[in-house]
Amino acid sequence: MGLRTVWPGQLCEVKMENSGYAESFPDMHTATSSDEDLVEITGATLDFSSTDDVPPLDRDCGSEGAGGAGNGLNGVPKLMDLLDEPVPGVGTYEDFNTIDWVREKSKDRDRALAGGIDISAHWMTDLKEGVCLIGFWFNHEHCCWNSNETTFQERDKCPQWNSWAELMIGSNDGPFAYIINYLMYVCWALLFSFLAVILVRAFAPYACGSGIPEIKTILSGFIIRGYLGKWTLMIKTITLVLAVSSGLSLGKEGPLVHVACCCGNILCHLFTKYRKNEAKRREVLSAAAAVGVSVAFGAPIGGVLFSLEEVSYYFPLKTLWRSFFAALVAAFTLRSINPFGNSRLVLFYVEFHSPWHLVELVPFVLLGIFGGIWGAFFIRANIAWCRRRKTTRLGHYPVLEVLLVTALTAVLAFPNSYTRMSTSELISELFNDCGLLDSSQLCNYANATDIKTNSNTLPDRPAGHEVFTAMWQLALALVFKMLITVVTFGMKVPSGLFIPSMAVGAIAGRLLGVGMEQLAYYNHDWVIFRGWCSPGADCITPGLYAMVGAAACLGGVTRMTVSLVVIMFELTGGLEYIVPLMAAAMTSKWVADALGREGIYEAHIRLNGYPFLEPKEEFSHKTLAMDVMRPRHSDPPLSVITQDGMSVEEVETLIADTSYSGFPVVVSQESQRLVGFVLRRDLIISIENARQRQEGVVSTSRIFFTEYTPPQPPNFPPPLKLRGIMDLSPFTVTDHTAMDIVVDIFRKLGLRQCLVTHNGRLLGIITKKDILKHMAQIANRDPDSILFN
Amino acid sequence: MGLRTVWPGQLCEVKMENSGYAESFPDMHTATSSDEDLVEITGATLDFSSTDDVPPLDRDCGSEGAGGAGNGLNGVPKLMDLLDEPVPGVGTYEDFNTIDWVREKSKDRDRALAGGIDISAHWMTDLKEGVCLIGFWFNHEHCCWNSNETTFQERDKCPQWNSWAELMIGSNDGPFAYIINYLMYVCWALLFSFLAVILVRAFAPYACGSGIPEIKTILSGFIIRGYLGKWTLMIKTITLVLAVSSGLSLGKEGPLVHVACCCGNILCHLFTKYRKNEAKRREVLSAAAAVGVSVAFGAPIGGVLFSLEEVSYYFPLKTLWRSFFAALVAAFTLRSINPFGNSRLVLFYVEFHSPWHLVELVPFVLLGIFGGIWGAFFIRANIAWCRRRKTTRLGHYPVLEVLLVTALTAVLAFPNSYTRMSTSELISELFNDCGLLDSSQLCNYANATDIKTNSNTLPDRPAGHEVFTAMWQLALALVFKMLITVVTFGMKVPSGLFIPSMAVGAIAGRLLGVGMEQLAYYNHDWVIFRGWCSPGADCITPGLYAMVGAAACLGGVTRMTVSLVVIMFELTGGLEYIVPLMAAAMTSKWVADALGREGIYEAHIRLNGYPFLEPKEEFSHKTLAMDVMRPRHSDPPLSVITQDGMSVEEVETLIADTSYSGFPVVVSQESQRLVGFVLRRDLIISIENARQRQEGVVSTSRIFFTEYTPPQPPNFPPPLKLRGIMDLSPFTVTDHTAMDIVVDIFRKLGLRQCLVTHNGRLLGIITKKDILKHMAQIANRDPDSILFN
Repeated sequence: MGLRTVWPGQLCEVKMENSGYAESFPDMHTATSSDEDLVEITGATLDFSSTDDVPPLDRDCGSEGAGGAGNGLNGVPKLMDLLDEPVPGVGTYEDFNTIDWVREKSKDRDRALAGGIDISAHWMTDLKEGVCLIGFWFNHEHCCWNSNETTFQERDKCPQWNSWAELMIGSNDGPFAYIINYLMYVCWALLFSFLAVILVRAFAPYACGSGIPEIKTILSGFIIRGYLGKWTLMIKTITLVLAVSSGLSLGKEGPLVHVACCCGNILCHLFTKYRKNEAKRREVLSAAAAVGVSVAFGAPIGGVLFSLEEVSYYFPLKTLWRSFFAALVAAFTLRSINPFGNSRLVLFYVEFHSPWHLVELVPFVLLGIFGGIWGAFFIRANIAWCRRRKTTRLGHYPVLEVLLVTALTAVLAFPNSYTRMSTSELISELFNDCGLLDSSQLCNYANATDIKTNSNTLPDRPAGHEVFTAMWQLALALVFKMLITVVTFGMKVPSGLFIPSMAVGAIAGRLLGVGMEQLAYYNHDWVIFRGWCSPGADCITPGLYAMVGAAACLGGVTRMTVSLVVIMFELTGGLEYIVPLMAAAMTSKWVADALGREGIYEAHIRLNGYPFLEPKEEFSHKTLAMDVMRPRHSDPPLSVITQDGMSVEEVETLIADTSYSGFPVVVSQESQRLVGFVLRRDLIISIENARQRQEGVVSTSRIFFTEYTPPQPPNFPPPLKLRGIMDLSPFTVTDHTAMDIVVDIFRKLGLRQCLVTHNGRLLGIITKKDILKHMAQIANRDPDSILFN
Repeated sequence: MGLRTVWPGQLCEVKMENSGYAESFPDMHTATSSDEDLVEITGATLDFSSTDDVPPLDRDCGSEGAGGAGNGLNGVPKLMDLLDEPVPGVGTYEDFNTIDWVREKSKDRDRALAGGIDISAHWMTDLKEGVCLIGFWFNHEHCCWNSNETTFQERDKCPQWNSWAELMIGSNDGPFAYIINYLMYVCWALLFSFLAVILVRAFAPYACGSGIPEIKTILSGFIIRGYLGKWTLMIKTITLVLAVSSGLSLGKEGPLVHVACCCGNILCHLFTKYRKNEAKRREVLSAAAAVGVSVAFGAPIGGVLFSLEEVSYYFPLKTLWRSFFAALVAAFTLRSINPFGNSRLVLFYVEFHSPWHLVELVPFVLLGIFGGIWGAFFIRANIAWCRRRKTTRLGHYPVLEVLLVTALTAVLAFPNSYTRMSTSELISELFNDCGLLDSSQLCNYANATDIKTNSNTLPDRPAGHEVFTAMWQLALALVFKMLITVVTFGMKVPSGLFIPSMAVGAIAGRLLGVGMEQLAYYNHDWVIFRGWCSPGADCITPGLYAMVGAAACLGGVTRMTVSLVVIMFELTGGLEYIVPLMAAAMTSKWVADALGREGIYEAHIRLNGYPFLEPKEEFSHKTLAMDVMRPRHSDPPLSVITQDGMSVEEVETLIADTSYSGFPVVVSQESQRLVGFVLRRDLIISIENARQRQEGVVSTSRIFFTEYTPPQPPNFPPPLKLRGIMDLSPFTVTDHTAMDIVVDIFRKLGLRQCLVTHNGRLLGIITKKDILKHMAQIANRDPDSILFN
């Protein structure tokens, strides 16, 4: 490397064992055995707040460390490659093969997990309503598949499947049976959610929530020990099934990203290359996030783009290709398993391909506006509720909270068939156009029977009685879902937002779609309908409106654009609806951005005070580096170490007196010319080691950071040469550098601190925390809300 | 800004007029009136090579400046925002509205242009074969649409459309008629290509080639004056039509990206915000590139991803959204115009949706391997040919070369019906599965008529006589296309690579597909076919193989992955074929990367010596900044200016003696403590101005860069205060910084130079050119091939 200087053998061992020092880069803290729970990974910082300062309930969702796989630490991607060199055995892996193998394994496991979650959740959801007599392990659908007595018309009714009322009192009719079914439904829901929250509380506090805010933070270079460990993986998988089955208004897609990242992280431990290098590991995690979405939705490209647009912080093109490969393997596995039973990768496959008309863009944009408003409202309400949970006594009873919300959800959901069914079923039904053999309420059109004979799809038609009933029920379901999701997201169970958001949008869209359809039917002669909506023609597809609405609401909440559209058309197979989806996604993002700038994940990151430098936010204040750096004008001067002037005792005093995690090394106190940067941790270890192993090192020994140590007078104690632990290339900016450039440098290079100079003299230091505090101050937020450094 | 220091009124005017100095950032050269043709935009450099040194034929494709819209210059995106502030009137535009308006306009114009190109090229292509009697402005298809005598079976035959032989000798039969048609075909082709190359030579040398390498370079921060000007736009549009019509093996998709960027650039001139800020303008250009692909293929999402993966250098998320919006508008306009006549956005819509079997992945991967090998071969052969053109006398006769290649193409293409038709028609035919009423040779299956009656698609079938003929013709066409494309790409006419690459792949894929189909037909009982390929079942879709082959070859040439797959399925509507496409794209990229690391665009960038720091390439050499910086050990020390010690004369001598384009300012020659960086250009202008306008400034006047000027003795000439033109925050690294970090900083921050310090003293400087030379040296290439700085 060109800087392998003279190094005492003993110290060299220390270095290998701890490898917790920055070698020649600004951002190379690789403390694999540090005992801190939440650590910034990019190099050193001057004021390090350990987790002891953190109140246990300050983070939204679990704050106690959870054992699990410990994380080594490291920062900037690519900059780190040199670090790998000294580790023996790394060279034996061919770069590309290794990573592929890791990914491939990971993907199979993810897919298997996702499949398991799917099947279990399906079975348990049905368990709330009844049980299969030919085998309790069959879910409703499988139970009736195995029955011979099922007719095609009523696929979901068969004698083998008994509701709880049938099982207990032998009949499914009458108010008494209804009450029994109702009660059983609520009881099962409570049981599931109770198990879920208890398991989370007991074994893996990190398993709650969607995990995406935390993964974003981790990918930006923060360490949360155990967050991606095996306990979290296990408990999250189990409790996710329980939470989804309990009927709470939550989805499994966000948590699956977390689960996939856990898998990726654990697999990383098998390989030296990834175990030792946090930056490389983050590349794997980016790919894992892509795979999480890929397997959740069966949307490989969408997953890659989601990881790029929403989750990842550094996303070099290499990661793009690797994520793409990972997604390919995932898609391939998915294709082999064929979980949706339609030989397609598609979760909510829509069968209609009817064209849309330009006039319809108006309602699509309206849906976009609705989605944007709902997204902004949801984020505000949810953040307000979560803040209330953090600050009031509510936060002390998470189990009770979950049980109460579950009870409320179950009690309100059961009477309405659209809320009783699982949310994915609901979305699927709303997305579908009315076919010939559709027995759904939504498809009860007045003259449907007349036309059924000669066409494959139903043309334009007046709504029947049941459609109106369905509309009312859907309207109620809309209000219910909108409100209950606000209190559900952020509870101490695994909870995703994708499916509930899409459900809200799909309901709104379907309502608008049916409305448009009826309007067109009764007003064929209006100018806007003339020419394309003649009687008997199939001009308006309510299912398409549901699709567009779902995209709009999901966009409003998460602020995705490109990835959203790709996910939506991979999800539905509706490639011809790209323009409606894009229009809705764009409108929704604009409206939501106008009402509140943050997406739900950013809002939760801020709520929890994670040190996340938002890459999307533009920093446009006109401050200079000198305004942000420490020390301030009134503070005592910066604590520095001189390169040849200090004794062991002086340095030890400096370490004892301050809590900074690193010190600049200068030529002399007078000149303040910067030589390098040394980490507190490395300094302590080196001095300790030297005292123990190097003969004659005492408190009066002088410490040298210079390249050549001057010959010592004969009766002086031997000197201590520490140039090897010094980072020789600390990052510097001048005091006149505009802060927006500094912020940009921090973001793009993933720095943790940067030294400030004036005319070649060292003047101060800026840490990531200083920047975050400064930004909080500018936005009139409490700068002390940024807890971890 | 905190650094508005005392500034003489006169100088202030100079500053506004020229605005050619760096204010407080390292990268802010905004010389809107500089006379250099090819300029690096990010700040200053020490050794600036003007274009006079550049031999006229050194660049692949046109090197003379072409008038047109001059570009202002500027560098790092986002870092530049402060610069906008002093310009009056900028604040009156609401950020988002402005950019939308620009884009929207631009898109409509692009679309209109693309539509015009489409229609003209179609008409002129048909003109080579014949003319329409009811109006010469109809193309073949329109001519026969207007005819009543067309039968459905032979849509392309009607009495109104006369071949040249019919027109001249009244008959289309016999060898004489054939010869007449042949001659006319060749003559028209020669005429079109002659016009194209003459127009390019005469009016806009930059209009040749695909333009994507140059646009990549421009987006990375280089200026090529006139490259995106109105002349280039006009001439490129016209000559593109001519070149495509001439039957040369080239496509219009790449050049359309160039055309779209020209539109974007010209529109930028209407808005102060974009005219003045090169970084913002580059954001618009990124979006324009996305739109170019969007309109070329009707693939909005694919366009955005193409811009992200292939073209753009900086791609902040904001640009992603804006590109997305631009693509939305483009897609919307496209949908309104409906150019492909199928109410879809899709260029090569495939109608089959038959599933594929896992076993088929083997041939798909084989196609991927073929694509990779072909891509690597093509790049090598094409680069070797282009180098030959640059270095031998061949390059002196561009018109003759174009005519020769056209003649060769036309003579060889006419006899084979698959090469005679336009390349997009060919691809379209190859992609399509054989339908019921298909009269194509490719669909002449032996027992087709027996089965036609009861099914909508043709099941598995033995090939008929004509299929074998078609196979032979296709095989010849494959060899022909492979060879002729190598010499065509890089000629002095607009030429894209997408369509020829796809054609090669589609032919290979179709051949393999038909082979597989026949194999399966005659060997139903083989293990690999058992279970899914029973007699009478439709198991192998040759069209799908063509699609996969096209993706593989395009991937091998361009090395796209994600964007390729998205473009392919947007292009064909085949969402269910995502796994085959991904598998082929990935294999192709691997194979091609193994055979040669660069894609065609990077190879051309290197061939032309553009200063492009490849963001994908990993720099892994273990050199340090001190090994790369100037001055070398043996060189004279760095030329610096002291902040208060030099007279006007001394500085003028320094300027006259050196050709560096900037000088570091230090506290004193002894301390070498860095204060700032000043541009040669600003220095000259400021001194000149002061001499003219500021009273008493003479050669002995001292120049001060300090904040406060010490009072001068009474009989001394008045001092010159130049702190205002100094960049107070030059970028520095220490001499021990590893070069891979330095390269990363240059890439991510878009620097042009960086100062090197040791222990707080200024030691040297690293420019982008130094880095490129160093990288060329490492790769054993000629470091002097990097021409422009």
